[in-house]
Amino acid sequence: LKQPLLMHINNSVFLRDNALVMIDRRLLPWQTIEVTGHNYEEVAKAIENMVVQGAGDIAITAGYGLYLAAFEAERDPECSNEEIRNFITAAKNRLLQTRPTGKYLALLLEKMIKSLEWEKKQYSSQLLQTINRSIEKQQKRSQLTAQWASSLIEDGDVILTHCFPGAALLYMLDLAREQGKRVEVICTETRPYLQGARLTSWSVSEMGIPVTLITDNMAAYCMNQGMVSKVFTAADRIALDGTIANKIGTFQLALAAQYHRIPFYILGYGGPDRSCAGGKEILIEHRDPREVLSFNGINISGEKVKGFYPAFDLTPPQLLAGIVTDRGILSASKIDMYWRLPADN
Amino acid sequence: LKQPLLMHINNSVFLRDNALVMIDRRLLPWQTIEVTGHNYEEVAKAIENMVVQGAGDIAITAGYGLYLAAFEAERDPECSNEEIRNFITAAKNRLLQTRPTGKYLALLLEKMIKSLEWEKKQYSSQLLQTINRSIEKQQKRSQLTAQWASSLIEDGDVILTHCFPGAALLYMLDLAREQGKRVEVICTETRPYLQGARLTSWSVSEMGIPVTLITDNMAAYCMNQGMVSKVFTAADRIALDGTIANKIGTFQLALAAQYHRIPFYILGYGGPDRSCAGGKEILIEHRDPREVLSFNGINISGEKVKGFYPAFDLTPPQLLAGIVTDRGILSASKIDMYWRLPADN
Repeated sequence: LKQPLLMHINNSVFLRDNALVMIDRRLLPWQTIEVTGHNYEEVAKAIENMVVQGAGDIAITAGYGLYLAAFEAERDPECSNEEIRNFITAAKNRLLQTRPTGKYLALLLEKMIKSLEWEKKQYSSQLLQTINRSIEKQQKRSQLTAQWASSLIEDGDVILTHCFPGAALLYMLDLAREQGKRVEVICTETRPYLQGARLTSWSVSEMGIPVTLITDNMAAYCMNQGMVSKVFTAADRIALDGTIANKIGTFQLALAAQYHRIPFYILGYGGPDRSCAGGKEILIEHRDPREVLSFNGINISGEKVKGFYPAFDLTPPQLLAGIVTDRGILSASKIDMYWRLPADN
Repeated sequence: LKQPLLMHINNSVFLRDNALVMIDRRLLPWQTIEVTGHNYEEVAKAIENMVVQGAGDIAITAGYGLYLAAFEAERDPECSNEEIRNFITAAKNRLLQTRPTGKYLALLLEKMIKSLEWEKKQYSSQLLQTINRSIEKQQKRSQLTAQWASSLIEDGDVILTHCFPGAALLYMLDLAREQGKRVEVICTETRPYLQGARLTSWSVSEMGIPVTLITDNMAAYCMNQGMVSKVFTAADRIALDGTIANKIGTFQLALAAQYHRIPFYILGYGGPDRSCAGGKEILIEHRDPREVLSFNGINISGEKVKGFYPAFDLTPPQLLAGIVTDRGILSASKIDMYWRLPADN
């Protein structure tokens, strides 16, 4: 069994020669290009430009950016301890500004700063330990989420998915196959960045699981033709009221699924955001409209046309059949019960 | 006021030197490339390859193809009258096979053959007369449809549309403006051929009307944000039960509109297809899946991924607020009353 590249973050985001190497996800699978972040600003720019994607992987990448900041400051013999701390704090604030919608980014950066023992020094190696523990935890979370999710899969299921829902989707498919269930996947291409085409359909096909690619506007037709038995997407953030924020187009898919009575599940990994009471509190990132107006550098619409590019949308809990977390499967409207479930790790 | 190129078919499809010149709509607006059909087979191939699009314009283009067949046969002094007739019939059968979902193509070709007075000879000039009458009739239909449609527009409306709904949309916007109503347009890009981006948003912007481009997966979000007051699309075919076939993605938009209680209107031009009782009788064209798997010649998904490309979908009458025809506006479920309305031409 071949492991898809995107099943573990360190296959595509890793340290080399005191810099962070990121394999550019905007060009996968047809080109494997390394983007190198030599300092936290370069890492922040790469995150903003979507060299990496997915709430969990963005968080880890930003964590490495914070590590690089500590490393840079420590190396300077003229830097006082206070200056190093200030430099690390500035880096954290810069990295926090890169992508506003996901929650793991802020959570991880806060945790990294909080866990620093300032009297111990060796800040960079302390931070690297926290990153490595977080990667392990995320990987474990993906696997636990996948275990719960695989219990929902029935033999013969055709799963529609949108964007790249992360490793939990791949683990889920792998587990379902181990359990002897035949499963197929339909991926929406996910404009404008085509993550569904480039990352998801490619990863699933590398696992040897049958996968079909459609454009975003074909999903309701496929549902209507009886081609889809379940929908699974990830969520960049989950509010306590069960509203989920995910890649633009998720809400539209949920409406189509509801009309056709097809269950729509969220791969919710570590559950809801404790500090987010409802969908209204989630800031939807709007990206550069030029990304919608052009393709491969060619303007596709004429010079007088405006573009509009919300990167995420909100799906209300009533449209969801359930949220699958590392601790179990909850109804979306009861997602605030997450912390009452026993934790496995 | 600048007239958009696509407001009249003869701006982009016309005879020159005994051949048919078609401006390639797959490359508009960034390139104006002429594709020349020297005979009916080349015209048929151009239709199949989507050099032209839109049910009405496809029909006229096929009509020109039939004209070229008659012209070619007549020019050959060794061709008997019977041989000319057989050649014309063969051309008609070939052209009929190009695109199966629209209805005007078959209607126009049948009408052209039927109106031929075989004893009169000069078949090509007879056919050309029928084409010219049909173009005039279609143009009139577009304008009448637009008149009715403009009565639905209110000051301040933001109209969402999908694919390129033909001249009626442009006339409607023009009329609404003349009536002193401010109106704006949002276009879905309409993957995989991007007709919404390339043809609709460009044409509307050429008229000086504010227009915003979004990807297909952003429509429900825009509706949810209160950015859309009405939806208008065309239909490639309308069944007597009020089911409409239109560009893939229309059904999905109608579901999102219903959820948000936004009225969804069809620009129905010449009304329903008399011979089509219900949606089940409409053949949905499936195009080459490779058109979904690649962009600008680059495979976007990996070699082991399958593609799926239905070019149209069906929207049931319950999701429609009305069908606007050249004879008036009808509820979709009463579209079979079309012929009871007085005809203006």
